[in-house]
Amino acid sequence: MKLYTYFRSSAAYRVRIALNLKGLEYDAIPVHLLRDGGEQRKQAYTDVNPSALIPALEDNGVVLTQSLAIIEYLDEEHPMVPLLPQDAVGRARVRALAQTIACDTHPLTNLRVLKHLKGPLGFTEEAKNEWWKHWNILGMRDLEAHLERDGDMGRFCYGDTPTMADCLLVPQVFNAQRFNIDMAQFPNIARINEHCVNLPAFVAAHPSNQPDTEA
Amino acid sequence: MKLYTYFRSSAAYRVRIALNLKGLEYDAIPVHLLRDGGEQRKQAYTDVNPSALIPALEDNGVVLTQSLAIIEYLDEEHPMVPLLPQDAVGRARVRALAQTIACDTHPLTNLRVLKHLKGPLGFTEEAKNEWWKHWNILGMRDLEAHLERDGDMGRFCYGDTPTMADCLLVPQVFNAQRFNIDMAQFPNIARINEHCVNLPAFVAAHPSNQPDTEA
Repeated sequence: MKLYTYFRSSAAYRVRIALNLKGLEYDAIPVHLLRDGGEQRKQAYTDVNPSALIPALEDNGVVLTQSLAIIEYLDEEHPMVPLLPQDAVGRARVRALAQTIACDTHPLTNLRVLKHLKGPLGFTEEAKNEWWKHWNILGMRDLEAHLERDGDMGRFCYGDTPTMADCLLVPQVFNAQRFNIDMAQFPNIARINEHCVNLPAFVAAHPSNQPDTEA
Repeated sequence: MKLYTYFRSSAAYRVRIALNLKGLEYDAIPVHLLRDGGEQRKQAYTDVNPSALIPALEDNGVVLTQSLAIIEYLDEEHPMVPLLPQDAVGRARVRALAQTIACDTHPLTNLRVLKHLKGPLGFTEEAKNEWWKHWNILGMRDLEAHLERDGDMGRFCYGDTPTMADCLLVPQVFNAQRFNIDMAQFPNIARINEHCVNLPAFVAAHPSNQPDTEA
């Protein structure tokens, strides 16, 4: 398998965690999102993924896109170390937690949105950071409220083994920490993150441990 | 089953289509997103869904949130009239198309984002509409490119029966048409939408045919 990845991409980080949790080997193909106007927009990559978004996974000559779709694919093709519960309600709960990040939080604060705010819309650096914090804190608050209310948590978001939800939570907390968001206001998220980040699969997926990592 | 819905909510519209395609009866519980500061933010609803987002589905006393997670749940619990293909690659493709809308497009242009732009950020009506068009056109372009490239299309996004991707495509086109986006630039999306909108399941789910529909 080949994973088109960028060390600091949240969406790629999610898939790296899933691959590692399942013990699957892959070749990392770095695509630099900032160099030279963005390598993701060059034809070499848009031939792979016309959306010019990272990640993409190539498996048996087939290219798959969208981090959640890729993780579900890995879970179906490699069911050992499952990343979704066995029952339909549990699966819906894990998917909903993942989508709270993937649909409600991250899309508002990813690189292309921040570039649009600073470029065409002329936001100051401070206004851009305020935007980032606003949507991140709102998303984290929703995630925290669901974790607290739904009653499915264990050491991980759902029970005592990692699921797709944890593959999303950890990269989002990594982003939040880069922007100095005080995680003490989200005690369940902070506790789950602390538990995850020391596990080998998560360590190996971390942005600081990639072949394309920069200082 | 109870569906917490709002006639014009894209995310609720998606789930209504899925319920109708499967021939499942449900009670619609309208939650008015604009009345009285937003009924979704009152405790009567945040007790149901702490994220204050529509839709939520209640089934056998369990509340599920996030439109894609709800549709997958319905597909697992009611596998007649499947909304995902049988094979893992096909499922990944349909999920990726759905996520191109649910993760890359709609979150940037939904009601709470538009209100944030016009309120705290002081965007003019024109600037807000420009924002809306920018992200919608980008999302539609990505969706069109994937439909064209992936080669899975039939009369629907994937083959000749409706899938979860069509449940997402039709509400997004409905939004685009409200903002007068010229759909001729997206011929595959336009053709699939035209085919879908005349089918009974899609007609019954349309914002103009809901118990809470307003002029």
